[in-house]
Amino acid sequence: ECRQDKQRGRRGGRDLVWERVRQEAQMAAAEEQLLASFLYSTVVNHAALESALAFHLANKLASPTLPSTILNEIFRKAMRETPDYGHIMRFDLLAVADRDPACTRIIDALLFFKGFHALQAHRVAHWLWQQRRYPLALALQSQVSKELQIDIHPAAWIGFGLFVDHGTGVVIGETARIGNNVSMLHHVTLGGTGTKLGDRHPKVEDGVLIGAGATILGNVTIGRGAMVGACTLLTTDLPPHSSAVGVPGRVIGVPRVATPAT
Amino acid sequence: ECRQDKQRGRRGGRDLVWERVRQEAQMAAAEEQLLASFLYSTVVNHAALESALAFHLANKLASPTLPSTILNEIFRKAMRETPDYGHIMRFDLLAVADRDPACTRIIDALLFFKGFHALQAHRVAHWLWQQRRYPLALALQSQVSKELQIDIHPAAWIGFGLFVDHGTGVVIGETARIGNNVSMLHHVTLGGTGTKLGDRHPKVEDGVLIGAGATILGNVTIGRGAMVGACTLLTTDLPPHSSAVGVPGRVIGVPRVATPAT
Amino acid sequence: ECRQDKQRGRRGGRDLVWERVRQEAQMAAAEEQLLASFLYSTVVNHAALESALAFHLANKLASPTLPSTILNEIFRKAMRETPDYGHIMRFDLLAVADRDPACTRIIDALLFFKGFHALQAHRVAHWLWQQRRYPLALALQSQVSKELQIDIHPAAWIGFGLFVDHGTGVVIGETARIGNNVSMLHHVTLGGTGTKLGDRHPKVEDGVLIGAGATILGNVTIGRGAMVGACTLLTTDLPPHSSAVGVPGRVIGVPRVATPAT
Repeated sequence: ECRQDKQRGRRGGRDLVWERVRQEAQMAAAEEQLLASFLYSTVVNHAALESALAFHLANKLASPTLPSTILNEIFRKAMRETPDYGHIMRFDLLAVADRDPACTRIIDALLFFKGFHALQAHRVAHWLWQQRRYPLALALQSQVSKELQIDIHPAAWIGFGLFVDHGTGVVIGETARIGNNVSMLHHVTLGGTGTKLGDRHPKVEDGVLIGAGATILGNVTIGRGAMVGACTLLTTDLPPHSSAVGVPGRVIGVPRVATPAT
Repeated sequence: ECRQDKQRGRRGGRDLVWERVRQEAQMAAAEEQLLASFLYSTVVNHAALESALAFHLANKLASPTLPSTILNEIFRKAMRETPDYGHIMRFDLLAVADRDPACTRIIDALLFFKGFHALQAHRVAHWLWQQRRYPLALALQSQVSKELQIDIHPAAWIGFGLFVDHGTGVVIGETARIGNNVSMLHHVTLGGTGTKLGDRHPKVEDGVLIGAGATILGNVTIGRGAMVGACTLLTTDLPPHSSAVGVPGRVIGVPRVATPAT
Repeated sequence: ECRQDKQRGRRGGRDLVWERVRQEAQMAAAEEQLLASFLYSTVVNHAALESALAFHLANKLASPTLPSTILNEIFRKAMRETPDYGHIMRFDLLAVADRDPACTRIIDALLFFKGFHALQAHRVAHWLWQQRRYPLALALQSQVSKELQIDIHPAAWIGFGLFVDHGTGVVIGETARIGNNVSMLHHVTLGGTGTKLGDRHPKVEDGVLIGAGATILGNVTIGRGAMVGACTLLTTDLPPHSSAVGVPGRVIGVPRVATPAT
């Protein structure tokens, strides 16, 4: 299953995701003349999805401090050196297309979803953090928070297939961990309670769904497949496959199985 | 009444709103030398309010993808071709000046309120959407979400006189409908519940007031003149002229009249 | 005590904060070649902390309307003419380093924290407002709201040592007053109830802590040392040294002493 997952979007040496993205870009360029030069320079003219993404992100996040040429180099290097980056990023990209009813083309996720952009920039910042390049990692986090309003500490650990919908106002703290195939809406906070140092942020397991404005504070665990309702404040653990709503959050669902499966 | 409404700000062929805006711009330029060249190039030197607004929005939203010259052309064309655009935009503009105690001059709403800017950019994106120019409409939505932190799907339908105060974090989904003279604060979400496809977003009737951080989810109807309190989570209909507060929202007011009038 | 406070970071004519910031900048430049030119032009090459900050903020907030050269001049002049600005700003800066567990170097607060940037830009806008330069003050507020997603009315009064963590979505109204050494997280609103004109925003006393997403509405007083929980909606006074949580907020703590000390 893991191997199949990793192969997602790839078959027989072909990169099906990239082929589809390029086709969509060519179709969109034919449809909309005003976007043609953008679509060619950002997508069609590139040799691989990673290269297109690095170029696009670098333009989105450029500043006098970090011009797009430097960002582009950093992104390309991080993408090359992060283990399995290509598979992880394709999972992230397909997660948007799969889970957002308003997203009908993969290229829309690639080009227009700031949740996806912030996540990929975080993966780069996380790689920089692991290389102990702290100032550059923090500079990138800061620029993403300013430009995309999504503030993820470079040290936070995030699995594959995270879907951040809309994204404005999301805050994810230094010691947070997010499993695979998690979905969250805008204004979600994975923060600290302010009373502890060290490991102080939530751990979110695989397949969790977190509604708009939900605020989860402290070193608590949101169990696999659980759901946190919109506007919920949660400062305690949430069992797998259960739901919590309210301020403060009350558990309204119970585990469907004793040993939850994915 | 409708005709009078449409004539608002216009009398005898004169455009009173535009006249006042130009006067205010000239006064501000005289007061503040550092803003004089901006005020002349953005307001005073233009022949009409639409032209000034298109120029200003194009500068606010410019990016390497969509430079200000192209945006300016798109905005001017959309403003010319959207039925009644001039009247609707003047209503939107006066709504800010009328309903915000901190707004004393119309020009402040025109130049400095990102809620107003995002709304006008949405009206352009909505026109593009209706022309089936989906990629350009989505590019514009995405740029507004990045630059102004207000994420309105181009397909959403919005009546005249919407006032979006502060605006940061507002999210309005694809199948939402908003009536006339609605007011909303920042962090308001008109979203889906995530369990449905198709028509899945709120319908907000005329004259509704939605407080800061209120989250309304699903294909529910917020009746005419109703009020949704700050930080309220609402997933059910709200009768006309009633109020809801809390997480989840409870109705605390009752209709004042059997058949509510505007 | 007050005098000692004012001297914070200064000893015997030396500016210890500035010395440390320059050292940290030099160390970071040695560590990270890609940031070296930025760190030299923004920090090391300056003669004083104020000059470095004005330069950095001007670059962060530049726009076609207000280019960085003009902003830099305005910031430098406001910093020179605001009584005690140097001390107040150093308190603000050290507040970030003191209270954020994720902030280990002062230079990170100076360069990368948009809450700190927005606060310093507000202090400039407030000075402009007091000089009755309303259009320029509003232009600056608007640009900060667009670029940093923190919307503080220029007339709002803010004491020293305010720490705004993350910052996205913070809104502070025209007649709000904030005492010294207050901490607030992102998405905090100090707003009006919409039913009053004039003095209509909260008064927050010294040492208050306001959690993420807390919304405080109306001319209410949050007493010294009080704590407002995350996601809380508060429309009533809160006694000193007590806590409130929930929607609507309930007081869960009681004053620890009859006459609260700092």
